[in-house]
Amino acid sequence: MTTSFVRPEPPYYAVIITTRPTADLEGYAAMSERMAELGEAQPGYLGRESLTGEDGRDLVVIYYADEASIAAWKAHPEHLEAQRLGRERWYASYSIEVARVERAYSFSRD
Amino acid sequence: MTTSFVRPEPPYYAVIITTRPTADLEGYAAMSERMAELGEAQPGYLGRESLTGEDGRDLVVIYYADEASIAAWKAHPEHLEAQRLGRERWYASYSIEVARVERAYSFSRD
Repeated sequence: MTTSFVRPEPPYYAVIITTRPTADLEGYAAMSERMAELGEAQPGYLGRESLTGEDGRDLVVIYYADEASIAAWKAHPEHLEAQRLGRERWYASYSIEVARVERAYSFSRD
Repeated sequence: MTTSFVRPEPPYYAVIITTRPTADLEGYAAMSERMAELGEAQPGYLGRESLTGEDGRDLVVIYYADEASIAAWKAHPEHLEAQRLGRERWYASYSIEVARVERAYSFSRD
């Protein structure tokens, strides 16, 4: 397997999310799992790459077919509540970038 | 600190790199460090976010001011040799995507 999912031909969109946690992560794992599940079911969702550091830092890239899909998910009521709780409790800081993938290369030994 | 580095106003560019290692990582750490050092010194380099998983998987996002900077670094002789060795020895697979960052948001508790 080259990557976690098969990319379409560009252009498509990537949302790059970097988060740093607070010391209060009560409820975070459950919400994170719920958002991943709900997010994957949204129209235009293509796949994701993510890693979590030992310090709790997350680096996540979520891929979408188009910008409208990103806007729709951003405004989803349950996601809005998760975003509010994130700012209130779980995130010390975050950075979110919306980017248009223009070229893609891959390599696989197989 | 909100993120690893201060982003400029969009648009700017992100190169999203996902790699999976082979079992032969001899020389990889030294080369990786050399490439990071050399890469940071290139014109147009803005900063990076990266994490390595327990399985050796890397997720790296490197930011640049423009596409010309990305093309110049891709064609740098020492980097070309590193790319060749990567395909020959160190990478089971990789995915590289060049994306134009169009919007950015950030949040910090401080």
